[in-house]
Amino acid sequence: MTAQTFDLMSYLQSRQALIEENLGRFVPVLYPVRLYESMRYSLLAGGKRLRPVLCLATCELAGGTTDMAMPTACALEMIHTMSLIHDDLPSMDNDDYRRGLPTNHKIYGEAMAILAGDALLAYAFQVIAETEAVSAQRVLEVVRRLGLAASATGLVGGQVVDIESEGKQIALETLQYIHEHKTGALLEISVVSGALLGGASSAQVELLSSYAHKVGLAFQIIDDVLDITATDEQLGKTAGKDLAQAKATYPSFWGIEASKAKAQQLIAEAKATLKPFGEKAVILEHLADFITQRHY
Amino acid sequence: MTAQTFDLMSYLQSRQALIEENLGRFVPVLYPVRLYESMRYSLLAGGKRLRPVLCLATCELAGGTTDMAMPTACALEMIHTMSLIHDDLPSMDNDDYRRGLPTNHKIYGEAMAILAGDALLAYAFQVIAETEAVSAQRVLEVVRRLGLAASATGLVGGQVVDIESEGKQIALETLQYIHEHKTGALLEISVVSGALLGGASSAQVELLSSYAHKVGLAFQIIDDVLDITATDEQLGKTAGKDLAQAKATYPSFWGIEASKAKAQQLIAEAKATLKPFGEKAVILEHLADFITQRHY
Repeated sequence: MTAQTFDLMSYLQSRQALIEENLGRFVPVLYPVRLYESMRYSLLAGGKRLRPVLCLATCELAGGTTDMAMPTACALEMIHTMSLIHDDLPSMDNDDYRRGLPTNHKIYGEAMAILAGDALLAYAFQVIAETEAVSAQRVLEVVRRLGLAASATGLVGGQVVDIESEGKQIALETLQYIHEHKTGALLEISVVSGALLGGASSAQVELLSSYAHKVGLAFQIIDDVLDITATDEQLGKTAGKDLAQAKATYPSFWGIEASKAKAQQLIAEAKATLKPFGEKAVILEHLADFITQRHY
Repeated sequence: MTAQTFDLMSYLQSRQALIEENLGRFVPVLYPVRLYESMRYSLLAGGKRLRPVLCLATCELAGGTTDMAMPTACALEMIHTMSLIHDDLPSMDNDDYRRGLPTNHKIYGEAMAILAGDALLAYAFQVIAETEAVSAQRVLEVVRRLGLAASATGLVGGQVVDIESEGKQIALETLQYIHEHKTGALLEISVVSGALLGGASSAQVELLSSYAHKVGLAFQIIDDVLDITATDEQLGKTAGKDLAQAKATYPSFWGIEASKAKAQQLIAEAKATLKPFGEKAVILEHLADFITQRHY
């Protein structure tokens, strides 16, 4: 497999299918049925599965197998899903639609939506702890770093500052804090956990962490741009919401064109950090490009 | 130290002080300040600290040190606190007071209360993963079992069935399911995690798990009895709420006196399972008694 012959779209499709099969297996329908249905409703509602894809690809790049990373890959999607369910709640972003479907609380009610999120979050750590064929020490390091990425020092911290910043003039540093925590932290641990599980050295983990940091930031910049330039239908959610809510975004600081250029620059830097891995990094290189080339 | 000379009250006071000192250390005030304040508001609002006390005592019974169990002890209190914050929300039990103080969402708002709970839950697993002086394998087993106890297979499952049963005639089996999951699971893992961290054998873990199961059930029966017989002031929350909400309770199946007798029987059985540990089990024996002798 080389950069020339690699077909990202068929790779993504087969990975997404494999991840969805495993998500469905990890969260079957048990008693209490409505709780599991609520968890599955949001967990299996589609999406790019970017975090699990990054985790699996990085594990393999580092010399590990798909099996070593699959529990963590699915756990990352559970935590991502938890954050979406809770963010959509009436007391938070109050969103009625997500990926073109009614949000969890619109179907199952607020109490169940909160509890389904809680269950997904706690279960994610259990699933990781059940990883086989990787040393307990490495798995425990994944648990530790995922805790950091998912709590007040990570995505919850980012969400809090995001809420507190609504309708306010904020500094670029605050916007960066929000994104580095609200979306960046989980993207970064997706790559780092794959590296750890695959047996990467500390130096390799550092390089891959830097790659993920840059890709995460580019991802968010593009997201902000798309909120302005895409339609509701293309996004599967309400477009123009940031503008309507007077939310600070990268384009509001830099303008649309400079934001796009900044994202491209970050992607180029991210790909440059992969150089030491040579041909093996072809998937992560393509994934970096994929993120900025989204047109929807 | 023997059963005769052991002073439970001074033991509990010194343990509670130590646990509170560590909770405050684990959750300092960082940025975003209001998030950490919200986490600390509920985490440091007092309470018996029964779960951490059980974890520490069992770890020491099994031959471990306080340091080995302290991170997990504090993590258990974080998860317990998360469940209280979320249970009190308007979309759940809609409680305005907890331990005589306004509930978290009454002070910080619903969004922050949800997020503070999420942060405590994720952080709990990180704190456990940072345990020193215990093998990674044992710590990972604690993570795994805590995931089971805190998710759909544990306290969230119990809370869901509790909500779904409100205002309905339910079977005794359903009531038992609710309590074994909503409160029992976390009490059980409090003891089991202490045993694992302290180096207990599988057979010892089994015995201690059985002790915790019986104590947990007795604890809930007494709680149901106190809701009927105690005053608001004694409980630090609204008394008679179960009756007012037509909630199924053990006394509603068995009557008050038979419920008390059943709790006493469970405590006697729990203490009997401790026999193989001899004098070393004196603290767990006293803790079992303490639970049924609450008069408030």
